[in-house]
Amino acid sequence: MEVDEVVCLPRLSRVAVCGGTHGNEMSGIYLVKELLKARKKVMEDEEEKPVSVMLVLSNPRAVQQCRRYIDTDLNRCFTHATLSGPMSDTTPYEIIRSRELNTMLGPKGSPGAVDLVCDLHNTTANMGLCLISYSDCDWICLHIFRHLQRQMPDVPLRYIHFDVSNKESYSLDSVGKHGFAMEIGPQPHGVVRSNVYTAMKAGVQHMLDWVSFFNSGTVFFCFAMDVFTMVKRFDYPRDSETHDITAAVHPQLQDRDFCLLHPEDPLFQTFSGETLRYKGKEPLYPFFINECAYYEKGIALSLARKRRVMIPAIRVQTEQEEQSNEQRFTSEEEE
Amino acid sequence: MEVDEVVCLPRLSRVAVCGGTHGNEMSGIYLVKELLKARKKVMEDEEEKPVSVMLVLSNPRAVQQCRRYIDTDLNRCFTHATLSGPMSDTTPYEIIRSRELNTMLGPKGSPGAVDLVCDLHNTTANMGLCLISYSDCDWICLHIFRHLQRQMPDVPLRYIHFDVSNKESYSLDSVGKHGFAMEIGPQPHGVVRSNVYTAMKAGVQHMLDWVSFFNSGTVFFCFAMDVFTMVKRFDYPRDSETHDITAAVHPQLQDRDFCLLHPEDPLFQTFSGETLRYKGKEPLYPFFINECAYYEKGIALSLARKRRVMIPAIRVQTEQEEQSNEQRFTSEEEE
Repeated sequence: MEVDEVVCLPRLSRVAVCGGTHGNEMSGIYLVKELLKARKKVMEDEEEKPVSVMLVLSNPRAVQQCRRYIDTDLNRCFTHATLSGPMSDTTPYEIIRSRELNTMLGPKGSPGAVDLVCDLHNTTANMGLCLISYSDCDWICLHIFRHLQRQMPDVPLRYIHFDVSNKESYSLDSVGKHGFAMEIGPQPHGVVRSNVYTAMKAGVQHMLDWVSFFNSGTVFFCFAMDVFTMVKRFDYPRDSETHDITAAVHPQLQDRDFCLLHPEDPLFQTFSGETLRYKGKEPLYPFFINECAYYEKGIALSLARKRRVMIPAIRVQTEQEEQSNEQRFTSEEEE
Repeated sequence: MEVDEVVCLPRLSRVAVCGGTHGNEMSGIYLVKELLKARKKVMEDEEEKPVSVMLVLSNPRAVQQCRRYIDTDLNRCFTHATLSGPMSDTTPYEIIRSRELNTMLGPKGSPGAVDLVCDLHNTTANMGLCLISYSDCDWICLHIFRHLQRQMPDVPLRYIHFDVSNKESYSLDSVGKHGFAMEIGPQPHGVVRSNVYTAMKAGVQHMLDWVSFFNSGTVFFCFAMDVFTMVKRFDYPRDSETHDITAAVHPQLQDRDFCLLHPEDPLFQTFSGETLRYKGKEPLYPFFINECAYYEKGIALSLARKRRVMIPAIRVQTEQEEQSNEQRFTSEEEE
C-alpha cells in the first residue's frame, strides 16, 4: 500500500443503527427509542438528508422481557448457514427474527445490503467504548474509529478485530457492506447508566457526522493506529461434575481490560481463596473480563494481540467513478 | 433504657445462612455452595459445634436459570397472608417454595423458628455491605453489625431499617426470630466479582463468630451507632403512554449511595439531556440507586433518614435464667 495513495470508496447512502440485539443491554435500546422520537423533529428541521438512517430495535420480544434473548442468542444467527437453513414450527424465535432483519438490512453479501450497520451493545466489562469488527482492513470502519477517537478524547476507545472469514461472521453487523458493533461498558445488563448512555449517544452522532463528511467529499488522511486482534479465550475453572464455576476473576485482573497480562499474573481466585495464574508464554491484552453473558458461553475473558496498522487516506468516489465502477461490475458479471 | 443495664437474651442455637433467594445474585449462591462443600471438612476438624448452621439455597429453580425469580419475587412472599393463603394448581412456584422454606426455617413467628436468618443478597448499587432489617431495636442484629464494622474496617458498612410492622414483613429473613439481609454491591446480577464474594464470605464468618462468642457468655458493651431508616422512594420519570423510562439516574448521583442528597441536587438526566432535580425539602440519604431489579418495581432510588441510636449491652441468658423464663412463659400461657 502506498502511503500517499487515496483510496476511493463508494458513498454510504444507507446506514442502520441497531439497538436491542440483546434485550437487556439498555443504552442501545433507549438510544434507538430516543432517536426514533427525535426523528420527526429532525425531519421537520432539516432540509437536506444526505444519509438515510434506519433505526432498528433488533429483538423486540427480548427487549420487552428485558432478557438477552428468548430462545437463542440473536447475535450468533447471521451466518449464511443459519440464514439459509430449513425452517419449521419449532424454529427458535431469534432465527426467524434474523431472517426478517436480513431481509430488512441485507441480504447479507448482496449489492442490496445497507452500506453500514452500527449495532449497539453494552458489556459488564470495563471496556470503555470499543468498535468490534471482523476486518482490520475495512477503511470505513477504521476511519470512523479514528474520528470518534478525536471527537471523544475523554472516553477510552479501542478497535477490536475478530479474525473470522466473512463466511463465518455471525453477528448482525455482518449483514451490512460495512459494519461494526459499538460496545460500551461497564454497565450491568438490565441497567442504564447515564454516562454510558451519553457516550453511546455521542459515538453514534459522531459516526453519522463522519458519514456525512465522507459523502460530501472530505478527504480523510492516512494514519497509524492500534488494533486488538482476539487470539484466545479462557473459561472459568469449573467443577467437573456440576460444571459450576469454582473461581472468580482475580481482583487484580477485574476491571483491567486492555492492561497487558503477563505470564504468571493472577487470573482467577478460587472460592476457597487460592490464586490461579496466567500460564501463557506471551503477554496479551485481556478484554471482556467477567462479561455477564459469557458465563454460559464458557468465556471468562478474551485475550488480544495489539498490532500497529497503517490506514490509507480515503475519499468518496465521484459520481463519474461510481458509474464507471458500476459498468465494470456489470460487464464483469456478464462475462 | 439505662445505659449500664445488660440485656439478657436467649442463646442462638440455630442459625440459617441463605443464598439464591434471588437466583441471579451470585455471591450468595457461590458462597452457600462453597460452605456446603466445606461443611464436611469442618465437621471432621471441629470437636465442638456450639451453633447449628443451616445452609439454604432458597430458590434453586431460579438459581438454575440464573434469573431473579421464576414466577414472582420470592423475597416478597413471606407475609403471614401469603404464607397462609389458598393454594391451587396455578399457585406461582415461589409461593409454593416460600411455604417449604417457612416449614424448614419457621414457622414464622413461632417458638420453633430458627433463632437467626442471614439472607445473602447482591445489588448493582454502590452500597458496600449493608445489613437490612425491619427493626431498629433488635439488639442481636445491631450487635452483629457492630462486630462486622470492627472486624472489616476496609469495607463501608451501613445498617438499613425498613420500618414495617412484623405483620407486613415480607422477606425470607423475617421467618427467623432474628433476621437480616446482608446486601453487598456493586455487582451486576449474573456476575460474581471476587472482591464482593470475599467481603460476603468474611461478613458471614464474622457473624458466625459473633454468635459463638455470644453463646459462650461474652458480654457485649453498649454503644451508639447510625441507623438509616427508609422514608421515601422515587420512580424514574416515565412516558405516560408506553411507561418506558425517559431518564436515567443523574451521573452526579450515580454510585453516590449514602451521600447526603440536598434539595435541588441533580436526580435524573433525561435521554434528551435535561437535568431533573430533587424537589424534596429535607436532605436525605439515597441508597439502592439504580438497582437493576427495581426498574420493574418502579424504584429508581430509596431515601433514608439517618438517626443515632443507643444499643444496650447484651449477654446470653444463663441456663438458669432461660429455664426460669421458660417457666414464666409456660405459666403465662396457662393463665
